[in-house]
Amino acid sequence: MVSVRSVDLNSDMGEGFGVYEIGDDRAMLGIVTSANIACGFHAGDPLVMHKTMALARDKGVDIGAHPGFLDLWGFGRRPIFGDSPADIEKMLIYQLGAAQAMAASLGARVTHIKTHGSLGNMAARDADLSQAIVRATLAVDRDLIFVTAPFNETDTAARRANLRVASEIFADRAYDDTGYLMARKLPGAVLHDASFAAERLARMIDAGAIISESGRKFPTAIDTICVHGDNPAAVAMAGKVRETLAQLGFDIVPMSKLGRF
Amino acid sequence: MVSVRSVDLNSDMGEGFGVYEIGDDRAMLGIVTSANIACGFHAGDPLVMHKTMALARDKGVDIGAHPGFLDLWGFGRRPIFGDSPADIEKMLIYQLGAAQAMAASLGARVTHIKTHGSLGNMAARDADLSQAIVRATLAVDRDLIFVTAPFNETDTAARRANLRVASEIFADRAYDDTGYLMARKLPGAVLHDASFAAERLARMIDAGAIISESGRKFPTAIDTICVHGDNPAAVAMAGKVRETLAQLGFDIVPMSKLGRF
Amino acid sequence: MVSVRSVDLNSDMGEGFGVYEIGDDRAMLGIVTSANIACGFHAGDPLVMHKTMALARDKGVDIGAHPGFLDLWGFGRRPIFGDSPADIEKMLIYQLGAAQAMAASLGARVTHIKTHGSLGNMAARDADLSQAIVRATLAVDRDLIFVTAPFNETDTAARRANLRVASEIFADRAYDDTGYLMARKLPGAVLHDASFAAERLARMIDAGAIISESGRKFPTAIDTICVHGDNPAAVAMAGKVRETLAQLGFDIVPMSKLGRF
Amino acid sequence: MVSVRSVDLNSDMGEGFGVYEIGDDRAMLGIVTSANIACGFHAGDPLVMHKTMALARDKGVDIGAHPGFLDLWGFGRRPIFGDSPADIEKMLIYQLGAAQAMAASLGARVTHIKTHGSLGNMAARDADLSQAIVRATLAVDRDLIFVTAPFNETDTAARRANLRVASEIFADRAYDDTGYLMARKLPGAVLHDASFAAERLARMIDAGAIISESGRKFPTAIDTICVHGDNPAAVAMAGKVRETLAQLGFDIVPMSKLGRF
Repeated sequence: MVSVRSVDLNSDMGEGFGVYEIGDDRAMLGIVTSANIACGFHAGDPLVMHKTMALARDKGVDIGAHPGFLDLWGFGRRPIFGDSPADIEKMLIYQLGAAQAMAASLGARVTHIKTHGSLGNMAARDADLSQAIVRATLAVDRDLIFVTAPFNETDTAARRANLRVASEIFADRAYDDTGYLMARKLPGAVLHDASFAAERLARMIDAGAIISESGRKFPTAIDTICVHGDNPAAVAMAGKVRETLAQLGFDIVPMSKLGRF
Repeated sequence: MVSVRSVDLNSDMGEGFGVYEIGDDRAMLGIVTSANIACGFHAGDPLVMHKTMALARDKGVDIGAHPGFLDLWGFGRRPIFGDSPADIEKMLIYQLGAAQAMAASLGARVTHIKTHGSLGNMAARDADLSQAIVRATLAVDRDLIFVTAPFNETDTAARRANLRVASEIFADRAYDDTGYLMARKLPGAVLHDASFAAERLARMIDAGAIISESGRKFPTAIDTICVHGDNPAAVAMAGKVRETLAQLGFDIVPMSKLGRF
Repeated sequence: MVSVRSVDLNSDMGEGFGVYEIGDDRAMLGIVTSANIACGFHAGDPLVMHKTMALARDKGVDIGAHPGFLDLWGFGRRPIFGDSPADIEKMLIYQLGAAQAMAASLGARVTHIKTHGSLGNMAARDADLSQAIVRATLAVDRDLIFVTAPFNETDTAARRANLRVASEIFADRAYDDTGYLMARKLPGAVLHDASFAAERLARMIDAGAIISESGRKFPTAIDTICVHGDNPAAVAMAGKVRETLAQLGFDIVPMSKLGRF
Repeated sequence: MVSVRSVDLNSDMGEGFGVYEIGDDRAMLGIVTSANIACGFHAGDPLVMHKTMALARDKGVDIGAHPGFLDLWGFGRRPIFGDSPADIEKMLIYQLGAAQAMAASLGARVTHIKTHGSLGNMAARDADLSQAIVRATLAVDRDLIFVTAPFNETDTAARRANLRVASEIFADRAYDDTGYLMARKLPGAVLHDASFAAERLARMIDAGAIISESGRKFPTAIDTICVHGDNPAAVAMAGKVRETLAQLGFDIVPMSKLGRF
């Protein structure tokens, strides 16, 4: 049986393209238990996907699809308007299908989905877009674990559709008194001390709530913690967060093994 | 029971991109029984794929994946060297998976695969590349009907792997005394008279052989005839070819319904 | 001497990509006196640019650069946020330089600039973005005629920088009581009768003002009229607009020959 | 007056794209005297070009255009067939013009051209392709210094057109008894010892000849030495090569200051 004091660590990866590499996927796959793998639209290509999925499989790390906008130049980080939710739905079905086939070719499976960057951010505040993401997920594999921050439009749409929703918090970000991420530009919004961050995460998990900087509690399941691996400092911090959580008695377990959904 | 005098007509389509359109897919879907639908690399995008697959499904036309090189600018027609067969294999798995998911989202299925343009041409003469295409097919769906011209490396690789091979001839091309297509630049290599072409096709099917311009016979199954829809004249010719074959007593039947593989 | 009753007709063209074609550039080059030629970002490629510029040169049509967002899939029509004005400036310098070199290789010159689609629309309401467009123009060739609708932020920025501004109205669009284009979805916003449109244009030019549907006048120079060539009906309408303007006594003259700037 | 024992060091740079970075351009700009800057086709984008050119200008490093195939995924390293020399010519004009405008916007100038990767390699053996590259150069700026290895088709075409040709040798590659680079896979083909390489380069410059491994001499001007900065070891080697050449009494001088062409 999986401990109630268990949690998953997830990170974005497989975000290279052709000769370009970004992030230290190999290192991160020694730290996290779930990998959100780019699907070739905002980043990634079939070779990078294959390599990243093979590594994840070998390490026992959950393989997730991380679809985004068709925007390699902007790395999927730019808000792009003008596509209908129905268009986005098709773009996600395409990416999910590609990821599934690649995983299957490796004797593995895509077990979760998390939308990338600007697409995810826009959907969080847009019920129609969130429903499109949910429809794409249902169309491809209704058993996929659906990763989203709690309380937003995407969470609402996914729960209404009875998807298996994994609630995510961020390892290195502070929360404000609305229960959402504090804006990056505010002082204290981004944490740099791994021990401090891990202890804060532990408090939230034990409380069953997101806890804002002022101490306000927003009750929610906390299933997975997002960590980054963009640079050596980020990788080091992710490793320390995992270590500290383990010392605090948490089991770090792939999303698909949490046994909660 | 399907008549022995039955044959499939296939055509490439879904080759638009964004606002760009090419070919009259709607007209061609009233003529052919199998559609080779671009998978977003040499042409096509998720919206175009969706629309083309939906139309094909509604018309009872077989949906096929038509993967190619990652070369939108060159429309997959340029010979590109330097990718290993293992790289090509992953590129095909990606495209096939995307096509499968899109078809599934429409309540349909991808039932055949045919490689596009330069990739197909290069593979015809390259055993390693052909084996990579076969491996990609096996990895994604070993029941896919695998469309190829007879006698070449791709045909050999597919039959060795016990794939369900559909042998293809071209409606508008003459054959030389090696059993292959006569080079386009030679006089008579490209046929423009639909009745003449259809009668020639009928002779080949009844003979169970490709027949060269000089009358030499190359015995082979003939399961599917490739027609083009790039311009109004091509569409008209395809329509006339179908009509004449029907008048000559042939059943025009989707590949998956031929009952031969 | 150029008549005071003279005006330029401009149209977007050179918007193909690879094998893809869009619009009937050859026909439009027989109608308009200025061509806004795509620069390879929202559409166009070096071959299409070369061909379109060569045709324009041969017809005595002004060659203009028509730079846009790096968004082939969206054809530059999608609002894309997240790029700084300084980033956009560099993207425009790149496109303008490419267009200049291509024109020079044909013994011709780029004589005007008009921003494309969503970039132009966003800039119209954004002073910072407009200034970036102006800076790019100044950096590349301060003698370029700068085409913009009057009254907006782009017009303001260009006039402040002492650029040679050509004021543009649209042949097929009605204006509302703010002096701007009536929203497309409103009844009567898009004109389909060429004679009606041409007579309305003539009234505006003679009045030296944009005239709204309710008859309100917004005084402005009117130097160039934008017509479209996306489909046969649009080409026919553009031809009829030109014909009617000529019958009404207007000289249709390339922008660079108006002698006003 | 520039010493006869003077030589230029050149390196490829500006090869990032969007968020992707590759190579340590800042370090290399402290070592080399000429920068071959990617033009947005095989790599690079307007922002990367701008940044790289600004750094080069500030360091007094010559700014060169480094155009390549439209092949971001393959980084311009894949042999791509099927484009006519006339097509390639237009692709180069486009890239050169973009580079010129970007440099001009920084108060600088593009002073040399060197073709990238597979395009350069294919041209070396292809007189028609070489002539296309030469025509593009003439069309854009006939005063550009034209960098090429000696003895090949590109060198021949450039000299025939009276371009200012800079002859290039490679710092880290051995030459065979045809006067060309030894194939990479052969033992000893790639040098890893900077002192050894620099001494060998000095011998060649002093001899006025490429010297093969067996000691055979191929008389040629030697104007510029190509060094790499793809990884920290390459950067260190490039730095050591420069240092050793300086110790051996060579002036390391930007191409445009050699005073030879």
